[in-house]
Amino acid sequence: MLEDKNKERTSLSELGEFGLIDHLTEHFKITHKSTIKGVGDDAAILHFPDEEIVVTTDLLTEGVHFDLSYVPLKHLGYKAVMVNLSDVYAMNASASQITVSIAVSNRFPLEAIEELYAGIQTACVNYKLDLVGGDTTSSQTGLLISVTAIGHVQKNKAVQRSTAKEGDLLVVSGDVGAAYMGLQILEREKAVFKVNPQSQPDLEAYSYLIERQLKPEARKDVSSILQQLEVIPTSMIDVSDGLSSEVLHICKNSKVGCNVYEDKIPLDPQVISSCEEFKLDSTTIALSGGEDYELLFTISPEDFPKIKGNPNFSIIGHMTQESEGIHLITRANTKIELIARGWNALSKEKN
Amino acid sequence: MLEDKNKERTSLSELGEFGLIDHLTEHFKITHKSTIKGVGDDAAILHFPDEEIVVTTDLLTEGVHFDLSYVPLKHLGYKAVMVNLSDVYAMNASASQITVSIAVSNRFPLEAIEELYAGIQTACVNYKLDLVGGDTTSSQTGLLISVTAIGHVQKNKAVQRSTAKEGDLLVVSGDVGAAYMGLQILEREKAVFKVNPQSQPDLEAYSYLIERQLKPEARKDVSSILQQLEVIPTSMIDVSDGLSSEVLHICKNSKVGCNVYEDKIPLDPQVISSCEEFKLDSTTIALSGGEDYELLFTISPEDFPKIKGNPNFSIIGHMTQESEGIHLITRANTKIELIARGWNALSKEKN
Repeated sequence: MLEDKNKERTSLSELGEFGLIDHLTEHFKITHKSTIKGVGDDAAILHFPDEEIVVTTDLLTEGVHFDLSYVPLKHLGYKAVMVNLSDVYAMNASASQITVSIAVSNRFPLEAIEELYAGIQTACVNYKLDLVGGDTTSSQTGLLISVTAIGHVQKNKAVQRSTAKEGDLLVVSGDVGAAYMGLQILEREKAVFKVNPQSQPDLEAYSYLIERQLKPEARKDVSSILQQLEVIPTSMIDVSDGLSSEVLHICKNSKVGCNVYEDKIPLDPQVISSCEEFKLDSTTIALSGGEDYELLFTISPEDFPKIKGNPNFSIIGHMTQESEGIHLITRANTKIELIARGWNALSKEKN
Repeated sequence: MLEDKNKERTSLSELGEFGLIDHLTEHFKITHKSTIKGVGDDAAILHFPDEEIVVTTDLLTEGVHFDLSYVPLKHLGYKAVMVNLSDVYAMNASASQITVSIAVSNRFPLEAIEELYAGIQTACVNYKLDLVGGDTTSSQTGLLISVTAIGHVQKNKAVQRSTAKEGDLLVVSGDVGAAYMGLQILEREKAVFKVNPQSQPDLEAYSYLIERQLKPEARKDVSSILQQLEVIPTSMIDVSDGLSSEVLHICKNSKVGCNVYEDKIPLDPQVISSCEEFKLDSTTIALSGGEDYELLFTISPEDFPKIKGNPNFSIIGHMTQESEGIHLITRANTKIELIARGWNALSKEKN
């Protein structure tokens, strides 16, 4: 019998919108008491007695935020959720629900969308999220994913970016710059592949960088670590557009200045070695790379002993009077103005 | 002095993402006590003590949901909000916050996006909504708008589509079919314009149809009218994909059957006359046209006297046992199975 080579390509219009939504969401479980009604009505119904809720939304578009020639759809689904969770955690809140809307061109068969949703489902399981709604439609070209995340936080306990004080210490979780270098590696491999499709890349030496780019994890743990340490951040933001851009956001919103110390910025050894290989300045990459999904926060100087030496955190600077400005103190002890060269989705050139 | 003909075209990348968001949202006012923090942090902070919240989201894509050759951007912004509010009202909830994300190709200057936001702002003013977040990014082609609407409702007062009972009456607000006929008129004018760009269309006779297509209003008033009448709907859904599709949703989710009476379906005179002109069956258009943004609901038969004769509502049928099926009773008193031929965003052909 002849094999049907097309058997794994089911067209989306065969299922129709409602059939597709039913199909894609049937394996998602509702686990939160706060979800009264999830997918399947005009709107989801949620209930958070006594708590405040936080709401954030992000849009990822093909050719701008991701390149499907090296981003597996499953990872893309996972990352689209992480990008939003990172914003929820940056409010010191717990994430509990998401909605996911996708626009897809008809070049994507059902199996591709299933892969995308498999990644979304893995994120829901790992981060204990209920998928409560969304929309599925076609686009004239490419793939677009819009995720809204909802979280909750005790009344008056949300941490904003506008409440840093002069004298506070500036702290970042994990390390920065790796996701950007992961992108450089993937772009280089794509270029190599175009010339020689038989090439077998050895990416072992860049494994951390690639993982940070393709499968970032939002820092759900930071809030509970800080709680154990009995530290309440005075302000907080997530590092999505680049460390320098986020420092400027905190400063602008809190009306303070800042000194960031170059030698304190946490870099993974793979960032240092790949920057050497690519002849890039690792500090520039750390400051402007973006997509780190770490948390940047300020703490009262009194909390210094509680944070000092903690392997999860690096104290990278301190807040000053607004009039003192925002500076990077280099290894050579020179003071240069910190400017945002962060990633800008509006000016990114087309691939 | 020579006039700068380009003075009204500002490129989006000149402002950057944050500059653009600041610029577009500066005229939006926060009016709800439930909005603790709107635009300007990682996430919005909301608080609804004692109430349940409802969340819904919809995605509109260029070339699938709208054609910018005849849809003014201001109307598009307004409509993108209405589509979502309609879902909130269909839960018997009050809408209070929205987030708006857009993906735009660089063929759109700033002034175009300002128009879009002017429409969104008008919707926020008219419907008392706080814009609390969103995302702005570029797309490789075209325009895409993703809106999430948040509403609130007293505990246990949300009305779902799964709670209709055998014997309940089926009621629809306003009239149906007009938005679809408006689209036919606009498509026809577009075709005429292509042949003769000098043509001056007289659209007076179709004014209601065009308004229903380009500037629909969500039925915010229905919930309070019903409250005044002391009627609590037993189930409710909004009419976005077509009346027949929504009847089927209520039936499927409530496990009931239904008889819909053709002669009871409310049609505007312009729908009847334009259907004659286009040689279309007005009942088919009313059942399958979609985009009406009316509310379809069921009421207990005891509430019949309260609704009867009310100019806002038409009683179009009644719910039966599930085993009796879902039927249209025609003017000729024949019984034909009701099937969903509603608009399907996944199978719509490209323009």
